Amino acid sequence: MAAIRGKLASRALAAGDRLHSVRRFAEIMGVSPSTVVEAYGRLEAAGVIRARRGSGFYVAGPETPPMALSEATPASERAVDPFWVSRQALDADEDALKPGCGWMPTASMPNAAIRKALRNVSRSDGAVLSDYGSTRGSARLRRLLLGRFAEEGLMLSPDQLMLTGSGTDAIDLLCRLLLRPGDTVLIDDPCYFNFQALLRAHQVTIAGIAYTPTGPDIAAFEEAVSRLQPRLYITNSALHNPTGATISPQTDIRLLRAAGAAGLTIIEDEIFAEFEPAPSPRLAVLDGLEQVIRIGSFSKTLSASIRCGYIAARPEWIEALVDLQVATRFGGPSPLATEILAEVLAGGTYRKHIEALRNRLTRTRRDVAEQLASIGIVPWITPRGGFYLWCRLPEGKDSTIIAKRCMTEKIILAPGNVFSATQSAAAFMRFNVTQMAEARILPALRRAME
Amino acid sequence: MAAIRGKLASRALAAGDRLHSVRRFAEIMGVSPSTVVEAYGRLEAAGVIRARRGSGFYVAGPETPPMALSEATPASERAVDPFWVSRQALDADEDALKPGCGWMPTASMPNAAIRKALRNVSRSDGAVLSDYGSTRGSARLRRLLLGRFAEEGLMLSPDQLMLTGSGTDAIDLLCRLLLRPGDTVLIDDPCYFNFQALLRAHQVTIAGIAYTPTGPDIAAFEEAVSRLQPRLYITNSALHNPTGATISPQTDIRLLRAAGAAGLTIIEDEIFAEFEPAPSPRLAVLDGLEQVIRIGSFSKTLSASIRCGYIAARPEWIEALVDLQVATRFGGPSPLATEILAEVLAGGTYRKHIEALRNRLTRTRRDVAEQLASIGIVPWITPRGGFYLWCRLPEGKDSTIIAKRCMTEKIILAPGNVFSATQSAAAFMRFNVTQMAEARILPALRRAME
Repeated sequence: MAAIRGKLASRALAAGDRLHSVRRFAEIMGVSPSTVVEAYGRLEAAGVIRARRGSGFYVAGPETPPMALSEATPASERAVDPFWVSRQALDADEDALKPGCGWMPTASMPNAAIRKALRNVSRSDGAVLSDYGSTRGSARLRRLLLGRFAEEGLMLSPDQLMLTGSGTDAIDLLCRLLLRPGDTVLIDDPCYFNFQALLRAHQVTIAGIAYTPTGPDIAAFEEAVSRLQPRLYITNSALHNPTGATISPQTDIRLLRAAGAAGLTIIEDEIFAEFEPAPSPRLAVLDGLEQVIRIGSFSKTLSASIRCGYIAARPEWIEALVDLQVATRFGGPSPLATEILAEVLAGGTYRKHIEALRNRLTRTRRDVAEQLASIGIVPWITPRGGFYLWCRLPEGKDSTIIAKRCMTEKIILAPGNVFSATQSAAAFMRFNVTQMAEARILPALRRAME
Repeated sequence: MAAIRGKLASRALAAGDRLHSVRRFAEIMGVSPSTVVEAYGRLEAAGVIRARRGSGFYVAGPETPPMALSEATPASERAVDPFWVSRQALDADEDALKPGCGWMPTASMPNAAIRKALRNVSRSDGAVLSDYGSTRGSARLRRLLLGRFAEEGLMLSPDQLMLTGSGTDAIDLLCRLLLRPGDTVLIDDPCYFNFQALLRAHQVTIAGIAYTPTGPDIAAFEEAVSRLQPRLYITNSALHNPTGATISPQTDIRLLRAAGAAGLTIIEDEIFAEFEPAPSPRLAVLDGLEQVIRIGSFSKTLSASIRCGYIAARPEWIEALVDLQVATRFGGPSPLATEILAEVLAGGTYRKHIEALRNRLTRTRRDVAEQLASIGIVPWITPRGGFYLWCRLPEGKDSTIIAKRCMTEKIILAPGNVFSATQSAAAFMRFNVTQMAEARILPALRRAME
């Protein structure tokens, strides 16, 4: 590789020139032909040379496309809509700070266990490495989940569970099965912004129900159910996004009663459940999966790179969802991905990692709440787990304006109204406490508010 | 682990009993506490014991769900519709034979390169292991694709390319962007059965255009375009599924002319392109991505487990598709998956693997064609690449009946009508020549025909 690059630097080789054959170059360099194959392959992959089938290797021409990729629309020019935080945070430069994003820094993830799992999986049989998976996804991972659910008191038969490409995929498949354009769907206000983006893609009407520290405002929920005849209600169990609140058992019961009477289906997204200090009562458990559908993923606690979600629901719904998943994804999640997840979950160190993380998060939430209080930003409640603080800004401050200002300093925030279907959360902002360690964040926030 | 299992076998421990604490059991066994943590973790993952948070480990009770998972609907009871082959083949028992499936045996895949890539990736930084990816997916893999396209003469700017969760995902996203319920879509007749399943999920009207050995019947295509005003035409370039035919340059030009005049968009799925002995003219290249959209994946040649697809299209479409992908999947494909793919593609041995595979497939197609001819089954054409033979059965034989009969012997076939929107291919069957090595396939076929 160095020899070729040297010739290019010295102009002994130029665009369009043909390289020596593999055999000839191996003789010249005194190396094996397989070494040359490897070197040519790597130079080709780097765009330095090009192979023409049956004709050998040539120096790549000036037609080679630019190597630097920039994303099309500079994120800062976009409107502050439900896509704002997602696209800002996902496509952020490496040096951007992301107190507005929805995940922890990679240092908080169980990377040692993932590395070990990768090494183990590299020795597994070929089917895991290169075959399609079954339509419901890895039996091993499904067994682990069924065991976890049983521990909570949710006894499922295997035909009530399927794996999906991600937690978002799970909700998307459910929307395809259950919704038709024009249907009404209830969501929390505020709620995870991507619920809104996803529902808009399904062309349904969204109605926001005010969220209280003990769950959705149950009187407003009951009124909306009878007035709007919604088809679906989507919510987070355990730790609500963005508020960090936990629904009370009393609200659970009234929700289920109202939904039952009206034939309303509830999707309970338990993506943050593992962060709870002790499991709270879940709609899916109380209901036994009659009208509640449980979905979740491993993105927050294990890895967002190894994508996989799940759906637990009535068998006849699962059967229809499997067909939909075949039609729209050709099968379940990557066998390689699910094998890595199962290895980590079964590996013995994962639970310890989560316990330690929970304790660390308790301290971090407290520390960040104190820092924010020092500049007049106050948490709406004190969450019992997780990494979010949903905070009220000082009187008269607009979180959208502040987020736009901080964006110019490469600090990505999550202003309240991206979470609010009724646009009533301008005075709020969601902070991810695990992304607040950099000293320049607080002064930038203070300046933006001033 | 053996000690605990021993106690269970001897009934010294029973369901609900509490186990020793980690520290105490480590003392008893004379091992380190971390060994016990690992052992308890593995027993828990296997469903043998359960942890209760803050309270220790207990022997799992009889409430543990059954460990054997059976898929809900026995596949053989299903109607022979476009899902038939997918679900049969994806959920097949290990001992089933699959001449009807759409992939090669794992032994034909570059597993050594994948194993090496896994080991390399296990040493990569944490972001690849546990972070979300960018909205368009791995920049490294996109650069490799841009280089490959440039080699073909298709010069794209980076904002014309995005990665997706799979090839099917790519088409699904495009259907969401371009179609509304009730629109008309042209497909080839026969065509890849999952195009039909996918389009049905989008509630559009399907019109099949007869496929000839040189591409779609161009007169029928022109007539359908003017009569039906379709919004979209979906086809395979390079090697057509199921026929293995290659579209002629003359048909390419007339297709593009008819589509251009009518404002019709064409999705060109190039999933089998790498199997061509030399690249054929592609619609995307001739058109320069004005009205043609190129999609593809790595599932057929590299791995179907490591899922990733791509879309090359007009920049404004890509921009809208990125939003849709965020809303419905929260981002692009797994960074871990795309890093593994990039490692394999850049590794230097991949190209050699493909060359060898192409030569092997040429021999296998010829051998299997001879075997099939011996029982009166004759290829419609001789494909120039790939692993499919689209064959005509002896006079009067119905491939659906034969496929159902062979299913009782655990041989999964692909009867012609699952590929045919007009149900006009009962006399045809698609054979995957790489899945025909087992001696019992041919006699079973002959018996079923008798």
